[in-house]
Amino acid sequence: MVQYKALADDLVQLIEAGELRPGERLPSLRECSRRRGLSVSTVLKAYHLLEARGFVQATQRSGFHVSARADHYPQLPSSSQPDLGTIQVDKSGLIGQVLHGLKNENVVPLGSAFPDPALFPMTRLTKSLSRSMRKLNPARTVLDIAPGNPGLLRQIALRYHLQGFELDINELLVTNGAMEALNLCLQAVTRPGDAVVIESPSFYACLQAIERLGLRAIEVATDPAQGMDLEALEEAIVRHGPSAVWLMSNFQNPLGSLMPESRKRLLAELLARHQLPLIEDDVYGELYFGERRPPPVKAFDKEGLVLHCSSFSKCLAPGYRIGWAAAGRFSQRVQELQLGTSLSAALPSQLALADYLETGAFDSHLRGLRGVLQRRRDAMLDCVQRYFPTDCRVTQPQGGYFLWLEPAAPSDSFRLYKAALKQGVSIAPGNLFTARDDAISGFRLNYGHPSPEEVERAMQLLAGLLPMDEVHQSSSPGARSVR
Amino acid sequence: MVQYKALADDLVQLIEAGELRPGERLPSLRECSRRRGLSVSTVLKAYHLLEARGFVQATQRSGFHVSARADHYPQLPSSSQPDLGTIQVDKSGLIGQVLHGLKNENVVPLGSAFPDPALFPMTRLTKSLSRSMRKLNPARTVLDIAPGNPGLLRQIALRYHLQGFELDINELLVTNGAMEALNLCLQAVTRPGDAVVIESPSFYACLQAIERLGLRAIEVATDPAQGMDLEALEEAIVRHGPSAVWLMSNFQNPLGSLMPESRKRLLAELLARHQLPLIEDDVYGELYFGERRPPPVKAFDKEGLVLHCSSFSKCLAPGYRIGWAAAGRFSQRVQELQLGTSLSAALPSQLALADYLETGAFDSHLRGLRGVLQRRRDAMLDCVQRYFPTDCRVTQPQGGYFLWLEPAAPSDSFRLYKAALKQGVSIAPGNLFTARDDAISGFRLNYGHPSPEEVERAMQLLAGLLPMDEVHQSSSPGARSVR
Repeated sequence: MVQYKALADDLVQLIEAGELRPGERLPSLRECSRRRGLSVSTVLKAYHLLEARGFVQATQRSGFHVSARADHYPQLPSSSQPDLGTIQVDKSGLIGQVLHGLKNENVVPLGSAFPDPALFPMTRLTKSLSRSMRKLNPARTVLDIAPGNPGLLRQIALRYHLQGFELDINELLVTNGAMEALNLCLQAVTRPGDAVVIESPSFYACLQAIERLGLRAIEVATDPAQGMDLEALEEAIVRHGPSAVWLMSNFQNPLGSLMPESRKRLLAELLARHQLPLIEDDVYGELYFGERRPPPVKAFDKEGLVLHCSSFSKCLAPGYRIGWAAAGRFSQRVQELQLGTSLSAALPSQLALADYLETGAFDSHLRGLRGVLQRRRDAMLDCVQRYFPTDCRVTQPQGGYFLWLEPAAPSDSFRLYKAALKQGVSIAPGNLFTARDDAISGFRLNYGHPSPEEVERAMQLLAGLLPMDEVHQSSSPGARSVR
Repeated sequence: MVQYKALADDLVQLIEAGELRPGERLPSLRECSRRRGLSVSTVLKAYHLLEARGFVQATQRSGFHVSARADHYPQLPSSSQPDLGTIQVDKSGLIGQVLHGLKNENVVPLGSAFPDPALFPMTRLTKSLSRSMRKLNPARTVLDIAPGNPGLLRQIALRYHLQGFELDINELLVTNGAMEALNLCLQAVTRPGDAVVIESPSFYACLQAIERLGLRAIEVATDPAQGMDLEALEEAIVRHGPSAVWLMSNFQNPLGSLMPESRKRLLAELLARHQLPLIEDDVYGELYFGERRPPPVKAFDKEGLVLHCSSFSKCLAPGYRIGWAAAGRFSQRVQELQLGTSLSAALPSQLALADYLETGAFDSHLRGLRGVLQRRRDAMLDCVQRYFPTDCRVTQPQGGYFLWLEPAAPSDSFRLYKAALKQGVSIAPGNLFTARDDAISGFRLNYGHPSPEEVERAMQLLAGLLPMDEVHQSSSPGARSVR
């Protein structure tokens, strides 16, 4: 076993044995390095691994502390182990069917990809919308087509600056949500028939894009805590010569995994070595529960190979459909593609967000939002703890609003999806997130949604529907319908 | 020569000879039918041809009158005669370059595809935007993804109803402008490598879409007055087995042609015979100068083969990026494609338009807009008359805001474009509108733009740059720069 993993395992044992208590500080990097005879960077790697797994939390000034909940987390799911073949994708029918089911207002939407709409500053945004449209120069309706409204572009570039890295504003393009950004970027770097590396499991929009563009998918092992396995990635590159990689380094959908910084650096180096573009979907990056925003892989890219895509849909303004791409050396091609497909993003939405961001209210909104989401994560993990079998595995995401659950016994989450939907609860079944047709045990839950009572009842109901032993079935009785 | 064309030619001669004076009524259909020994429908076809060519105008109650300007119109350009091969398209670089040039605020934008932004009810739309967003139920941010906001969908369906034909509302999908609708529809009915029939010349977005999707183009002869030649179309279908046809039946971009109703019916029959989908771009249909909105081909389609696309960008709300598709039997596929590419159109834009349309102000706005555009068309035709060589050919569009001009001597409009741009005037050169690489003499002018003085000076300048005889060159002296 590699050294940092061995160190991490030792520390987990100390935490689980209660020798390191919640709130207690881990030894400093130097101290641990000295004691163990390891390099400081190896110790840091181990600490980051523990952080990603939810056992410790980093604080800006005082190092790493055992996290408050570390003593009673259920086990993490293990990393996926897909074979490295290339796959023709044909999932849009299934995906469309499931998404359609989620539009029913009478269902507790744990399967939804959207955050709770009540969490956003709709009133302030409406003010920004009215104000900016009242002072609109009509000529801007023509001038603010791609790459976008200059004021909004400046505000977006400023967000990168605040994260500590500089972005050439000419790389930026405002899009109709991150979805459009991702699609344009993928098309910009591929041709029909090409292979693209994706995570296993991966966000279904990625599967849809691959299918639509006539590409093939290569699914690569992805750890629920640390993201894509870089050794498996390099093997896939050597074996299949793909045209691009597509992944989410921060709070991945559906796993919630967070790629440690060290791994992001390695990934950027690997891309440079193979001159391979990366489409980085970073829509959840602002929804971190730690001390600071985790950087994207883009922060470590010196060659313009990373096409970084994000949006305001998950963290500020759902429904406004404003996203962007910072497409590195591919920017011009991405802009050309947008001119020929949607022309530009809606001007009212662009102006409203530019105005809102200029007021400086975004960061305090984000602080509140992160707090709410973190509490809701904890509440849902509590439900897992209380109602689900103890051998059920679940992720402990450090940001975003998705949990990934895996019953211990292999089962078909699509059957669970259908059974739960009949009783008024939706989940996102695992087979939405793979190009393969196999039954998948794991499924995604959205913990960002409204009332704690409703979530608790929904979780009880799900637990009752899981394939499990007799004892457990009787422990979550009779909840036939949640609403 | 076919009978109706012969009749039309006779009538043109009478008009040009001054025997039928501007304002005078043509003989009634019955009377003319009796006198000539032709069927009423043949006479009607001839009258429609004259109407499309601008020689006569139809009025609801009192038949056809010689139009006020018919006595001094320059000649129409002749129909294009492309050969019927299939072409790999590679024009997005050129198109991107020219569109980028049009973003310069210091240029008189006769090459622009956009209408004058001052022509739209921006203040009322902003009111609708504020009002509808203030009363927004946040849940709609999730629910109004494809196919769109139900209120807006109802208002769009109502427009079809007012045009006299019923549309199943389930066919409708709200999109990010017509551009997205057209792209999704084209993708829904084709696979890479397929051939698609287009007009010659055709709107450049159509060329971009064909290129992006890896399709091949078949350019079919298109008459500046009456649109696509249906005999040539049928020949192309038989010879190449294309997967779709893409055209604009109303006020085509760039020609301004209007396909007569009789031809639209024939086209619908032809599509049914070959079970071939038609992507109908109808974004200018509301901008008619005649008595009533010309119906789209969709109105005559009994088989769900027409994917009708339009938007509010040209007639109400530029920059809001709201369009739609009524995609017939292909609706579900088009919806699936949107879910995977942009998810949905922006909610603020959707709600604002739904609210505005509900106020009932749209039709009076349209009446005003049509009047302005018609006067601007006349003003630009006056400039052609005054400053351009008499053998220069020009269209007389009965709606929309584009003229198509062709110098008598074969020339390269792209050189004219570059020369004019240096002097502060843009045009849309003909080679933007064809998949071929040949030099094209004709070019498109936007007559919808602002000040008459600026347009007049720009037209003088253009006339001075045309390839022409010595006499004419000296007649438009020294206008070096318009602004």
